[in-house]
Amino acid sequence: MGKEIERKFLVGSDGWRAAATSSQRIVQGYLTQGHGVTVRIRIFDDTRAVLTIKVGGMTLSRDEYEYEVPLADGRELMAHAGSRVLEKRRHAVPFAGRDWEVDVFEGRHAGLVLAEIEMESEDAAVSLPDWLGDEVTGDQRYYNSALAGA
Amino acid sequence: MGKEIERKFLVGSDGWRAAATSSQRIVQGYLTQGHGVTVRIRIFDDTRAVLTIKVGGMTLSRDEYEYEVPLADGRELMAHAGSRVLEKRRHAVPFAGRDWEVDVFEGRHAGLVLAEIEMESEDAAVSLPDWLGDEVTGDQRYYNSALAGA
Repeated sequence: MGKEIERKFLVGSDGWRAAATSSQRIVQGYLTQGHGVTVRIRIFDDTRAVLTIKVGGMTLSRDEYEYEVPLADGRELMAHAGSRVLEKRRHAVPFAGRDWEVDVFEGRHAGLVLAEIEMESEDAAVSLPDWLGDEVTGDQRYYNSALAGA
Repeated sequence: MGKEIERKFLVGSDGWRAAATSSQRIVQGYLTQGHGVTVRIRIFDDTRAVLTIKVGGMTLSRDEYEYEVPLADGRELMAHAGSRVLEKRRHAVPFAGRDWEVDVFEGRHAGLVLAEIEMESEDAAVSLPDWLGDEVTGDQRYYNSALAGA
């Protein structure tokens, strides 16, 4: 079990690109969402599949259980997600001693860029890079599940 | 992925007990059920936890994905199932070359005994032992999820 505590921002400029150290393509689909339980399947770079069960409401922190599963299972589970799928490229961007993740969405959400930072506690101090736009932590419109139409 | 094809019966007598070769205690809880996706956590003999994602409707066959997870995760997921939990002892009962499973329910369903047989195809020939009662395959009242109140 892991507690997921994170802040999320729109990205206002391309200033992060020079600092990005790596990237991977993520396809993620939702088998079910709502009723307190989310079942998500993600495929990373078309080589690795991870199943996630999220339990608890739409709050800043929640219980999250992640398990790597065979890629073949991941592809089948993705098919079961139907149209509740989104695609993005996730870039790792170190800044001020923390690892930011910048998600550049593709497909129907092309143009949307979000930055996330995972924190050790809900009130941890975080230095904000100047390429960030508005904070959207807790804004349900920017949940990946909502973007996927789950 | 596995296709689960099974028939289920009430058990009319204790005739199966002499043939039982082993048993294990199963506690199983449902995190979500309905909307085409079931998330089930099972703990076997308080030592092994298995997460199951079932996709598809309430038909004779469905897609089922099972993953062993750490016991600590299993216990937490079980807690998230709240009251949607049932307990039973499952007995292995070989008969006519097939492995029957006889579930003796405990707690609020004490007195209920169900027998299941897994088949290789929906129309496979199966010899029925004389300790079986009525067939309840497809009867939603006897789904474990329904018994758990999920």
